[in-house]
Amino acid sequence: MNQSGKDIKITEVCLRDGSHAVAHQFTEQQVRNVIRALDEAGMHYIEVSHGDGLGGSTIQYGRSLVDEMKLIEAAVEEAKQSKIAVLLLPGIGTVHELKEACKCGAKLVRVATHVTEADVSAQHINMARELGMEALGFLMMAHSAPVEVLVEQAKLMESYGAEAVYVTDSAGALLPHEVRERVKALRDNLDIEVGFHGHNNLSVAVANTLAAIEEGATRIDGSVRCLGAGAGNTQTEVLLAVMDRMGYVIDIDLYKMMDLAEDVVGPLIPGSQEIKKGSLVLGYAGVYSSFLLHAERAARKFGIDPRDILIELGKMKVVGGQEDMILDLAANLAKKQTVEAGT
Amino acid sequence: MNQSGKDIKITEVCLRDGSHAVAHQFTEQQVRNVIRALDEAGMHYIEVSHGDGLGGSTIQYGRSLVDEMKLIEAAVEEAKQSKIAVLLLPGIGTVHELKEACKCGAKLVRVATHVTEADVSAQHINMARELGMEALGFLMMAHSAPVEVLVEQAKLMESYGAEAVYVTDSAGALLPHEVRERVKALRDNLDIEVGFHGHNNLSVAVANTLAAIEEGATRIDGSVRCLGAGAGNTQTEVLLAVMDRMGYVIDIDLYKMMDLAEDVVGPLIPGSQEIKKGSLVLGYAGVYSSFLLHAERAARKFGIDPRDILIELGKMKVVGGQEDMILDLAANLAKKQTVEAGT
Repeated sequence: MNQSGKDIKITEVCLRDGSHAVAHQFTEQQVRNVIRALDEAGMHYIEVSHGDGLGGSTIQYGRSLVDEMKLIEAAVEEAKQSKIAVLLLPGIGTVHELKEACKCGAKLVRVATHVTEADVSAQHINMARELGMEALGFLMMAHSAPVEVLVEQAKLMESYGAEAVYVTDSAGALLPHEVRERVKALRDNLDIEVGFHGHNNLSVAVANTLAAIEEGATRIDGSVRCLGAGAGNTQTEVLLAVMDRMGYVIDIDLYKMMDLAEDVVGPLIPGSQEIKKGSLVLGYAGVYSSFLLHAERAARKFGIDPRDILIELGKMKVVGGQEDMILDLAANLAKKQTVEAGT
Repeated sequence: MNQSGKDIKITEVCLRDGSHAVAHQFTEQQVRNVIRALDEAGMHYIEVSHGDGLGGSTIQYGRSLVDEMKLIEAAVEEAKQSKIAVLLLPGIGTVHELKEACKCGAKLVRVATHVTEADVSAQHINMARELGMEALGFLMMAHSAPVEVLVEQAKLMESYGAEAVYVTDSAGALLPHEVRERVKALRDNLDIEVGFHGHNNLSVAVANTLAAIEEGATRIDGSVRCLGAGAGNTQTEVLLAVMDRMGYVIDIDLYKMMDLAEDVVGPLIPGSQEIKKGSLVLGYAGVYSSFLLHAERAARKFGIDPRDILIELGKMKVVGGQEDMILDLAANLAKKQTVEAGT
């Protein structure tokens, strides 16, 4: 159990996960303004990358308005105390981009893989350590694997040299007791720090993060104003207020965080970060957002509810790249529902 | 501990607490549409009243577009299975309005008082029972009194004939462990049902509601799309999804709730129900929203931060009607801060 809060390091992701919310159209001036404000508030780490990590600016994932290396450089220039972090998904980003980000002044990289594919992170974690960067592992869709698999994959990342591993709730599908169980298992089985990255699809991102902290997680992600994909992330300024109320002592200025949430980040929000139907269904089903469109198409074809497909996909723990099976699944579901309706 | 969920009764408040969010401008057609959709989904109770309860349509609290008795009548007409509930704050509403609402077909009243003022509810709870209505007690700003006071006040309501008492987190200031403690104390000391009404100022409304349910609360409030004052309430459709994931069996159709949240309630939302600075500060400080303006004025006058005033007011457990002391408090704080800055 973590009692004091002094060991907890917060990473602000509104300029990375939040990049999804603005279709990767951050301007250099916006990045500078946000970094300056966060830096003045004493934020520990600020992640700056395309929403899908280094190298994500492609036609497939969405082109960034400004080259991310330019944004990283600008961020490093503005930050007097905050360290600039980057995200790297092996396969999207490579060691080439990692080296470049390091040259631009990034001090920390989170190497992110699907929860069952930690082995693809070895090279990138190694290289980051060689470059003198902090290298942390990010196990995405952490809800979709049994706890023992999560532990085994985290141990792989530890063996590659990761200095922390995050339980990454990419789909916003975890509930507080499930976060507790996962963080505890990692704490019990690793010698390195444990982190938590939450999404708010089920409106429990703050509660999940508190659960993680109570179980000893010391690396915590937040996003000011929830700015992030779908329902967004754990809302940083709210989390800090709650942590303060819980008695944790964090050296980040709460008033300044509230002010920048209103005055600096607020104006960047294009729509709203409320929990709408799409995000809720994804969190409830526990599936990748990329399945939504496929499920809707298949549902139309077979005259069934797309939610039935998504929930089934969630149960099957389907991962990206398996979109083909959605049509088969929809056909089977339609048949089953016809039979049931007939009985 | 509640295990099955079958005893849990949900009250939807988007047409009452949500009335604040639309400045009490609901049209009869909007009310009919929302009621019809909620009724089809199987919602247990739907509260229809001015945001400040029966009789709230005044210059002081904001005039309703449509007379609330007309809205209650329309709601009763549309609801085939859901029961229509009303809220009554003694002092704003009277037994006269209660009788009228009963004539219009309202089946349940929640009589709401400040957590230390349960005694003003006796007459209204009595009358409701005489009228054959369900009569429940609502202890507002429940965070601001010691647990033993909450228990004592709830027992008063029980003695008047209330069939349940709610822990009402009006300021959205409670954290899950605090909800747990309060619900448990009421469960241990009352023979009637216990309820919970949450607000999302600290982003833990769903987590608080789960905590309440786990401690045995069986009367639960939610608001579709969070529609309510400030940051809004526990988001009903999200809560139901989470309860489902937790294994509680509730006879409300989750898909229909998701659909009506998107298609029927969504279009009514004027701004957004995100957690912005004002709501966060109020939840963090635990004060009435009516203090915000007074605090801002006093802060300007004495050159201090309004948040310092609000936090101090929260510590002092100031209640409505004591706004006069805000100027004195601000003057003292300004003096103290000058002295501290000088040392």
